[in-house]
Amino acid sequence: MKEIKVFAPATVANVTCGFDILGFAVDQPGDEITLRKSNSGKVKIVKITGDGGALPLDTDQNSCGAVIKMFLNDLGTDQGIDIFLDKKMPLGSGLGSSAASSVAAIFAINELVGRPKKLEELLPYAMEGERAACGSGHADNVAPGLYGGFVLIRSYEPLDVIGLKTPNDLYATLVHPHIEVKTKDAREILRKQIYFKDSVKQSGNVAGLIAGLLTSDYGLISRSMHDYIVEPIRSILIPGYDEVKRAVMDLGALGAGISGSGPSIFALSNDHDIANRIAAKMKTIYAGFEIESETYVSKINQSGPKIL
Amino acid sequence: MKEIKVFAPATVANVTCGFDILGFAVDQPGDEITLRKSNSGKVKIVKITGDGGALPLDTDQNSCGAVIKMFLNDLGTDQGIDIFLDKKMPLGSGLGSSAASSVAAIFAINELVGRPKKLEELLPYAMEGERAACGSGHADNVAPGLYGGFVLIRSYEPLDVIGLKTPNDLYATLVHPHIEVKTKDAREILRKQIYFKDSVKQSGNVAGLIAGLLTSDYGLISRSMHDYIVEPIRSILIPGYDEVKRAVMDLGALGAGISGSGPSIFALSNDHDIANRIAAKMKTIYAGFEIESETYVSKINQSGPKIL
Repeated sequence: MKEIKVFAPATVANVTCGFDILGFAVDQPGDEITLRKSNSGKVKIVKITGDGGALPLDTDQNSCGAVIKMFLNDLGTDQGIDIFLDKKMPLGSGLGSSAASSVAAIFAINELVGRPKKLEELLPYAMEGERAACGSGHADNVAPGLYGGFVLIRSYEPLDVIGLKTPNDLYATLVHPHIEVKTKDAREILRKQIYFKDSVKQSGNVAGLIAGLLTSDYGLISRSMHDYIVEPIRSILIPGYDEVKRAVMDLGALGAGISGSGPSIFALSNDHDIANRIAAKMKTIYAGFEIESETYVSKINQSGPKIL
Repeated sequence: MKEIKVFAPATVANVTCGFDILGFAVDQPGDEITLRKSNSGKVKIVKITGDGGALPLDTDQNSCGAVIKMFLNDLGTDQGIDIFLDKKMPLGSGLGSSAASSVAAIFAINELVGRPKKLEELLPYAMEGERAACGSGHADNVAPGLYGGFVLIRSYEPLDVIGLKTPNDLYATLVHPHIEVKTKDAREILRKQIYFKDSVKQSGNVAGLIAGLLTSDYGLISRSMHDYIVEPIRSILIPGYDEVKRAVMDLGALGAGISGSGPSIFALSNDHDIANRIAAKMKTIYAGFEIESETYVSKINQSGPKIL
């Protein structure tokens, strides 16, 4: 194989009560990456198209470049690679943009050189790609991006990632309003200490959400999708959040929350029509605020990256 | 039917990371209650045998009496009932002693008068029985006692109780050392505020434990049975706790923790021999401290109370 083209999906992390531990992948949007073997002996980012104009072309600073370089290094090969990244999703949206690039890159390079490593061995590389892009090697976007479906990050030390079988009819609606929320700000406004009783309530919902997903109990999923700790604080950074949430719940969403650290908002539903109606409503609300937005509707992505 | 005899099981609440939200029932120990219809028009506690010497015979203060009186009241009948309670488990042990009495009583009276209410309708009564005995109407002992198995209390307002299907080969070993730990003290030493990062770690384990139980993944159950918040504080009240925990983990337990608010300690394992070896070791360790103890080994009870 001389060339490969791979799609990797956007992801939603911090799924309501599952802050830092629960994420899922969607069918769209996502990133497309093309890797082509070269004789240069170097990993080179040739071109970034789509929404990726602001991304660095420097190999080490770019999540795609960094992760491929590291991978080839570990294999002990100086194979040259030309990278063409088509960024089909917004940056800084809270939809796991850097994770999608990182996952696309590591999945593609592993396939291109004959699949020397197993899927689970690719996760630490994808996390390093996140580190190159964001400064910290979180797994709650790259893990669902790589495995598909809902993923639980039970622990970081040691890393313990568990794929969760999820119900068939689960749809995600996403809206990305054109607002800037800096991940750093979103981190810093969180309280360092919380009430233990809130933590207990939150853990009841985490337990309920996991049980609901694993037993396809949509009612339980819905009753469990509440976040007493992070949403009340972070939603302040997102204009229109309360209106959107109220409206999508009125339309029949199972639940809704901030995607990652925002500004994107996600809603889950168990009906395709409802998912579409939610998208239309999200767009209308932001149009009312004179804020541009994109919306996306898809099933929960069950397969992770795919070769195009 | 003129008379009925019912067994209700002991229960373990606060299952490691699942403080206040997760409990399970065991096959032994437990309570036996006999109810006999009388013509007195009154609910009367005739006799308490076994380990129940310290319990009040006054109907309203005793969880059995209070719960039966309330139930008959709601049915609008003045049927007289004579109660004989055979307390086959220690009081104040952290094994859900008052819950077992309360569950036995409400299950038995419902059967005795022709089963006018469904099982789930009995839960609020059993909780009121807890309130009569302990001053607060917690569900984390009565719910597993009534339903059997592992039970999640997702929420109290509104009450949302979810039975969790659990693996076939799951054994509980319990030790009740003869130490007094007052529930009130155990509550009061808990911190009101905790670090958010500890809460996130704990919720990862809650999620892992639920997923492990529902998918019969013993490894995941084991990796998830850690409590960063309550155990470090409450275990101070239980002499020998650290020794017991270390020893049972060395013997191959999946995990171990404080049962309820102590002093009893439970361990889970997926092998009957290991469960028995753990019991023997627990007894030996407490004997070494010159503290008397009882131990119990059983499968997770899957059926709740039963008619004898």
